[in-house]
Amino acid sequence: MTTLTIGIIGAGRIGRIHADNLLRLPEVKLAAIADLFAGDELREWAAARGIDRVTTNSDEILGDPSIGAVFICSSTDTHVPLILQAAAAGKHIFCEKPVSMDIRRTREALEAVRKANVKLQIGFNRRFDHNFRRVRELIREGRIGDTHLVKITSRDPNPPHPDYIKVSGGLFMDMAIHDFDMARYLSGSEVEEVFAQGAVLVDPVFAEHGDIDTAITTLRFESGALAVIDNSRRAVYGYDQRVEAFGSAGSAAADNDYPNTAVISGADGIVRDKPLHFFLERYNEAYVEETRQFVDSIVRGLPLPVDGNDGLQAERIALAAKRSVELNRPVRLSEIE
Amino acid sequence: MTTLTIGIIGAGRIGRIHADNLLRLPEVKLAAIADLFAGDELREWAAARGIDRVTTNSDEILGDPSIGAVFICSSTDTHVPLILQAAAAGKHIFCEKPVSMDIRRTREALEAVRKANVKLQIGFNRRFDHNFRRVRELIREGRIGDTHLVKITSRDPNPPHPDYIKVSGGLFMDMAIHDFDMARYLSGSEVEEVFAQGAVLVDPVFAEHGDIDTAITTLRFESGALAVIDNSRRAVYGYDQRVEAFGSAGSAAADNDYPNTAVISGADGIVRDKPLHFFLERYNEAYVEETRQFVDSIVRGLPLPVDGNDGLQAERIALAAKRSVELNRPVRLSEIE
Amino acid sequence: MTTLTIGIIGAGRIGRIHADNLLRLPEVKLAAIADLFAGDELREWAAARGIDRVTTNSDEILGDPSIGAVFICSSTDTHVPLILQAAAAGKHIFCEKPVSMDIRRTREALEAVRKANVKLQIGFNRRFDHNFRRVRELIREGRIGDTHLVKITSRDPNPPHPDYIKVSGGLFMDMAIHDFDMARYLSGSEVEEVFAQGAVLVDPVFAEHGDIDTAITTLRFESGALAVIDNSRRAVYGYDQRVEAFGSAGSAAADNDYPNTAVISGADGIVRDKPLHFFLERYNEAYVEETRQFVDSIVRGLPLPVDGNDGLQAERIALAAKRSVELNRPVRLSEIE
Amino acid sequence: MTTLTIGIIGAGRIGRIHADNLLRLPEVKLAAIADLFAGDELREWAAARGIDRVTTNSDEILGDPSIGAVFICSSTDTHVPLILQAAAAGKHIFCEKPVSMDIRRTREALEAVRKANVKLQIGFNRRFDHNFRRVRELIREGRIGDTHLVKITSRDPNPPHPDYIKVSGGLFMDMAIHDFDMARYLSGSEVEEVFAQGAVLVDPVFAEHGDIDTAITTLRFESGALAVIDNSRRAVYGYDQRVEAFGSAGSAAADNDYPNTAVISGADGIVRDKPLHFFLERYNEAYVEETRQFVDSIVRGLPLPVDGNDGLQAERIALAAKRSVELNRPVRLSEIE
Repeated sequence: MTTLTIGIIGAGRIGRIHADNLLRLPEVKLAAIADLFAGDELREWAAARGIDRVTTNSDEILGDPSIGAVFICSSTDTHVPLILQAAAAGKHIFCEKPVSMDIRRTREALEAVRKANVKLQIGFNRRFDHNFRRVRELIREGRIGDTHLVKITSRDPNPPHPDYIKVSGGLFMDMAIHDFDMARYLSGSEVEEVFAQGAVLVDPVFAEHGDIDTAITTLRFESGALAVIDNSRRAVYGYDQRVEAFGSAGSAAADNDYPNTAVISGADGIVRDKPLHFFLERYNEAYVEETRQFVDSIVRGLPLPVDGNDGLQAERIALAAKRSVELNRPVRLSEIE
Repeated sequence: MTTLTIGIIGAGRIGRIHADNLLRLPEVKLAAIADLFAGDELREWAAARGIDRVTTNSDEILGDPSIGAVFICSSTDTHVPLILQAAAAGKHIFCEKPVSMDIRRTREALEAVRKANVKLQIGFNRRFDHNFRRVRELIREGRIGDTHLVKITSRDPNPPHPDYIKVSGGLFMDMAIHDFDMARYLSGSEVEEVFAQGAVLVDPVFAEHGDIDTAITTLRFESGALAVIDNSRRAVYGYDQRVEAFGSAGSAAADNDYPNTAVISGADGIVRDKPLHFFLERYNEAYVEETRQFVDSIVRGLPLPVDGNDGLQAERIALAAKRSVELNRPVRLSEIE
Repeated sequence: MTTLTIGIIGAGRIGRIHADNLLRLPEVKLAAIADLFAGDELREWAAARGIDRVTTNSDEILGDPSIGAVFICSSTDTHVPLILQAAAAGKHIFCEKPVSMDIRRTREALEAVRKANVKLQIGFNRRFDHNFRRVRELIREGRIGDTHLVKITSRDPNPPHPDYIKVSGGLFMDMAIHDFDMARYLSGSEVEEVFAQGAVLVDPVFAEHGDIDTAITTLRFESGALAVIDNSRRAVYGYDQRVEAFGSAGSAAADNDYPNTAVISGADGIVRDKPLHFFLERYNEAYVEETRQFVDSIVRGLPLPVDGNDGLQAERIALAAKRSVELNRPVRLSEIE
Repeated sequence: MTTLTIGIIGAGRIGRIHADNLLRLPEVKLAAIADLFAGDELREWAAARGIDRVTTNSDEILGDPSIGAVFICSSTDTHVPLILQAAAAGKHIFCEKPVSMDIRRTREALEAVRKANVKLQIGFNRRFDHNFRRVRELIREGRIGDTHLVKITSRDPNPPHPDYIKVSGGLFMDMAIHDFDMARYLSGSEVEEVFAQGAVLVDPVFAEHGDIDTAITTLRFESGALAVIDNSRRAVYGYDQRVEAFGSAGSAAADNDYPNTAVISGADGIVRDKPLHFFLERYNEAYVEETRQFVDSIVRGLPLPVDGNDGLQAERIALAAKRSVELNRPVRLSEIE
């Protein structure tokens, strides 16, 4: 069995999820984890998992020739420099979304990856969700005929912390970017034009940072199909992640996942528990699957399931959506560099 | 267009439902309604519907040669004498269930009907329910293959008034008799053996009248298939009327009906309204359909959808179930005369 | 009991539905029906229902002082002249949507109605649907808190005949106008701005008539809330009519209605029948209810459930949507006269 | 962190599942695995998991003082001797169901466990299922009031291999025993009387071995409540595992689990995928949870979630059901020793 030695840069929530999932893969040796703020807590966490090296300096990982691939889970502003450095070192790269908030920088990173001939997978975990994947399969099998319309509902249970809002890049780049990727994934077509409407209805703090908390975005694809996405930063009943694709021969729709199927019928009505709370619960298995496929693409030479271009295109749509809200007009994707 | 002139005997709730449904059929002239307690209220009710004759004497209807069919909606103890009289007068008969609580009397009525060569339909309205009819269709089309098992859930939202419990004939003859007919209707086979378990869990008043309020009845059909029925006199969440048939090639199941499809998702869970409250709501259209088919069978010479034998067999199963509870052993249907 | 004498102008499909529903109301005398093409078939149809007068000349109805209210169910181009004439004659008016395709003409009709002090109800039947009404109730009761977003799915099973497409007024004025009214009804707010995207994906015949067959329309309300509507002229699985309202305290959603609840589980999956086929099936009870409330508003002096202004506003939104597609930019409602 | 060293006896399908689940628990050291037929394949399997010792002799495990607990996953006839030996060695025991098919032997095993003061957990994995656990919680919280009725549907997708049927102990002891435990778990009461009806409808091979493939079993609890269980050895649409509990204040029901929530609407109806195929898929997480709780009960001194008496009672019910079919009469549990 070929073994892939991996280092993780960034030991926040998502970095640790990837670590735990990688530990379940027999082909992987998780050799090191780097975090600017690495301390005793992280060292203990790593020790319990048999991860030998913990460092505050990502260079230790990027400079280690025994490491074949890196997971970049640090803050967005570090993604491009780390990708450039990793590519130069000939390492395969898994990078969280977005690559950057500046399309030119993203292109630069992609170019470096291309030249170095390494693999770059972007963390669009929702492509690996069992529900959405099944909808995509049904579309690919022709079960809905020609796709006319894709509808995506994407609402978070709770807004992020105000400190994060400031640096998040805004609703489109931080949150809806997943939905833009999903629209491309389901439709199998590229976006031509974007119109987005935004509102601040959840919390005025979003307005204070020039952001919005509610949005409807419509997309027109090259194929002629349309898509519409609704986003909210707060759904009191839990994480609301549904898709529907409609076509000439029918529709395929995926509902939320629930913690159980129990239903209680009482004098006041019929009640069931809320959907799975948030992305850690809902996309638990999807995270496992995306790391497995990343590792497979390297170890078994399979194609990447989500590549750098997928990251770039979603970023362009996010920028177009943002501009559309600012200008209150449709924005063609060709206007975004 | 042939016209069928009809008289109704018994102007309680169910008699009036049939009246209103008959008024919607263009081939029907509703000529008279008889009720022992007919008074001003009934007269007004009839006048508003253009029903000319209201009487306290059913002989006025049974002796009227212009009347071609009667609906017997009076109390159970009057069913057999009225059927005998109607058959002798050559009138077609629609009779509410049960024909009687004494199998010999029921057989006597059926014999009179046979000799008089009139039609007798029994009021097993649930056969006309859109859900159960669809399950039966699916079974008849072979969609579940050979039937192995029929499951029926039948729970009333509220127990009847104690005065009624006394004269009801008991849970099996009054309530479960519908389910026994449904089991025959869905399975397409005759019952060979019955085992029933009863309990008083809803209200001790049932025990005071030698009755039960909760029961599980299992049936073994001649075909080898099995059925199980659960009954309760009280379901706080509303009328619970579901069936499921399971066979070699799959299963077909029908859920309850609801007043609307609205679902509210809030911080406490996902809620929808309770099922339609009781038989008037749930079987509204089924009552319309059963009168329509009765009229059609006479006017257009079509076969009866539910005949006297269907009434007889359901009564036999009810008696077997009652005896099974008393003896705490399975009772073969052949033991019931 | 006060009796309201009614005449119907236009004996097409919808005129006859209203006739049958009016015949079920005890306070109503349906005195006459007018249709330009009235012939033997209509005369027989009317005779079977006891409607005495059938005419090709609507003046016979509008000039009859014994008639208190008229139903205008003729082609759209006749609506305004008939409203003007009926108002002048002091008759209450029920008019199918749209009042006209020219806002100035609609305003003229409304002004005449106002001056004549008669009632004018517009045929937005979906407001009376059990599902949508329940969603509206839940919103009004505060169950979703402040409304942030309204989503409406509205897809017809089959496109209309090409001859009709030509004169229909286009997807927005003919079909989506119901959804624009629903958006106002559910949100309880007025529309400020409209952005619509259209496509021809179902049948090129729509393009030949300068029409579209697929659309996504986003609305911004004065309240700050947003709405999004998706329309298609063809959904192979049947009439798709769903709504969802999302707010600060939760969401309320209504699914389609089905002909039955039967579900079949087989080796190939779990299957249920398609939704109710089209508007006659789905909105059957809603049509009954809208005529009942119209009659009640006159006989019992209750407020109208949908008035002329509701018709006007929906037309303005439809025109704004059409213009938005033409100009490919958001259109403020204030731009529409 | 306390470490519990565990050995597994029996390396068939279920033994390996437990092994993999135990490997995920940080407190556990999985030291050895014994199987009569241990060979190269098992050795490789164990090596890939870091399990050092593989043996054909269970004495190596039972005689190793460093091992604190054993999982008995070998064939049923070996359970009692292994329990006696393990108890004598002072080891905690996890044993698959049933303990034995002979109540006296089971009692003997329980007595040995009691005297040795070790823990014995029985493999009733369904108690740990997320759906059934939630139903039980709702009952415990009083959400359905007093329990009147428990209904359990339990159907396997496919019959076992004929070789297995011979030694399985029959439908009640092999398959329905899980449902008997579930009935006790949900009702919180002991069974007083059992009536079972069996049939051979799936495959005549069952009759050849004196077994049945279809059954309805009704239970009467000491509390006065009733239960009904339907079993089939073959459900073409997949593993059918549902429960419903009905009481004075409502009902709680749990549906099957599905591989995804995707629904496809087409011209032929609305379709979704079949439920999760079989127990490995459906109870995957339940198996993880049962081992976790077993380990917790030892390491943290928590009470056992399912103990030896639970095994004994389910066996008694299974024997009563078998006898009920043989005698075609209800059998009191007190008749079973």
